[in-house]
Amino acid sequence: MTLRTPYLLFIGDAHDQLAAKTAAGIAFWRPEICLGQLRMPGCKADLQLPDMTIEEAAAAGVKTVIVGTTTRGGVLGQGWEGLLVRALELGMDLASGLHHRLSDITVLRETASRLGRQIADVRHPSREFEIGNGKKRPGKRLLTVGTDCSIGKMFTALALEEEMRARGLRADFRATGQTGIFIAGDGVSIDAVVSDFVSGAVEWLSPANDPDHWDLIEGQGSLFHASYAGVSLALIHGAQPDALVMCHEPTRKHMRGLPHYPLPHLQLCIERNIEAAQLTNPTVRCIGLSINTASLDPAAARDYLRETEDRLGLPCVDPVRSGVRAIINHLLD
Amino acid sequence: MTLRTPYLLFIGDAHDQLAAKTAAGIAFWRPEICLGQLRMPGCKADLQLPDMTIEEAAAAGVKTVIVGTTTRGGVLGQGWEGLLVRALELGMDLASGLHHRLSDITVLRETASRLGRQIADVRHPSREFEIGNGKKRPGKRLLTVGTDCSIGKMFTALALEEEMRARGLRADFRATGQTGIFIAGDGVSIDAVVSDFVSGAVEWLSPANDPDHWDLIEGQGSLFHASYAGVSLALIHGAQPDALVMCHEPTRKHMRGLPHYPLPHLQLCIERNIEAAQLTNPTVRCIGLSINTASLDPAAARDYLRETEDRLGLPCVDPVRSGVRAIINHLLD
Repeated sequence: MTLRTPYLLFIGDAHDQLAAKTAAGIAFWRPEICLGQLRMPGCKADLQLPDMTIEEAAAAGVKTVIVGTTTRGGVLGQGWEGLLVRALELGMDLASGLHHRLSDITVLRETASRLGRQIADVRHPSREFEIGNGKKRPGKRLLTVGTDCSIGKMFTALALEEEMRARGLRADFRATGQTGIFIAGDGVSIDAVVSDFVSGAVEWLSPANDPDHWDLIEGQGSLFHASYAGVSLALIHGAQPDALVMCHEPTRKHMRGLPHYPLPHLQLCIERNIEAAQLTNPTVRCIGLSINTASLDPAAARDYLRETEDRLGLPCVDPVRSGVRAIINHLLD
Repeated sequence: MTLRTPYLLFIGDAHDQLAAKTAAGIAFWRPEICLGQLRMPGCKADLQLPDMTIEEAAAAGVKTVIVGTTTRGGVLGQGWEGLLVRALELGMDLASGLHHRLSDITVLRETASRLGRQIADVRHPSREFEIGNGKKRPGKRLLTVGTDCSIGKMFTALALEEEMRARGLRADFRATGQTGIFIAGDGVSIDAVVSDFVSGAVEWLSPANDPDHWDLIEGQGSLFHASYAGVSLALIHGAQPDALVMCHEPTRKHMRGLPHYPLPHLQLCIERNIEAAQLTNPTVRCIGLSINTASLDPAAARDYLRETEDRLGLPCVDPVRSGVRAIINHLLD
């Protein structure tokens, strides 16, 4: 499943900007492939892209309509189906990040099948994977890991890709979640894979490559998250990372969704991730920390980054405020 | 999905005793619910149970026909379908440990539906699970873990259940794999659960219980197995074990299926399992080791158990040769 570009971002009647965060992520990281947005009456989000109808999108050359948001009930809003059928009729594919599959909607599935269009439900794996084999693959790999979920692992991997490419290095972001898949154009929603096959799916996602090529693999969950740590460990083992970057948010009070679980100490979290990764790559090392300091004022953010860098002896950046140059400098040293 | 007992064990044309190992495991651990075996022409396995036709099984009171083996091609052998339809017609349910679902065979599905019979494809989860919540549940839990796959975790959990019940303790085996599910009559094939939901599935499998009640949870995989460690970690976190028993086979040369991976050192493997389990139960401890010494002669086995016990300071048993009394003694001390 590779998504054809460019995209029209369909954000329906998103009730606030956060409800359109998948689409906003695509527009932020890949503005060049986002030709426009389609908003329904009542939509409160704005991606700062040209508003387009389905017909205007087709005329502008859009190849895939991305459905990145949902109504409050979690299903397609009234009148949306007809629009998506029209998109298929005008030659465009559909891609969705909804839990409910677009391909389970009879009229969409049948129209796509009749016209030879693709419907990509990216939360759901579109193929079967082998069991992981743990064999060392050529090429270099960097994996973003975290103290918690939703803490900047995708953002960091994309910022590292941008920085490495700007320096002329060969680097590719590898997506393991829905927003990342839209951005990369392909990938695997790793938490939707049957547990036996997760490390194998990551081996497939990041195959053998040239010795100087870097895969920048999007991490998921955290070894310290009681709900998802198994996903994180299988991802670490399948990725065989040469380098880890630890992501963290210093003001978070507890693990996401688990108010009874505190965040782990950074040093311990780094040690445990290295220990885990050593199973499939004994030479792995942590090359830096990526901190989301959005909740701190600029002075407090600077202090936090400096203090953490001194304490851990590793470059410590905020990809938004300071960029990730220091991490790449350290990696290349 | 709870399997109705007693069982008829259908072992088809199993080409050797090993091909019928699932059925042999059921007959070994639950002889009282295995009324007979049904063997097809060419079958080379023998469970030492009365041979029965489908009709004789129904007359004897069998409630479920267990399909625990397959032909070489992995599918149902010629003539088997008709026998299984007959079983449904005579009032019996079907349960299968095959990868291919019996419920995908139209005639079986339709016959079962028409007659109100159950087809349990135990390798495939029959329900959806919540995300794990990591909340402490009352009741005591013991989890068997291992240096590798297929190293005695189910056998050990069942031996511990037998010993605890013999002492009047309240203890229930909790099955996480197909053979265990047939033995327990229910359970979850944990490696077939979507990765996001594995710890939640284990929380469901081992719910809150009385403070003096022990769940003896069947472990899967190994934290040191590059293919399956994610499954093992999610199982550990969902189980919230108070006690771990480490299973090992001292003559194994490499991790199962991974000739390039050596087995971990016992002490390190125990430490890593304790560290992992502490996330959801800080008071967890390892209470003993269960060693499969079948490949050693009696003197070498005795020496190995004694030497390992001295080195690690934990009771070290072979559940077949020495029984598991020493582990339960240590647990109750």
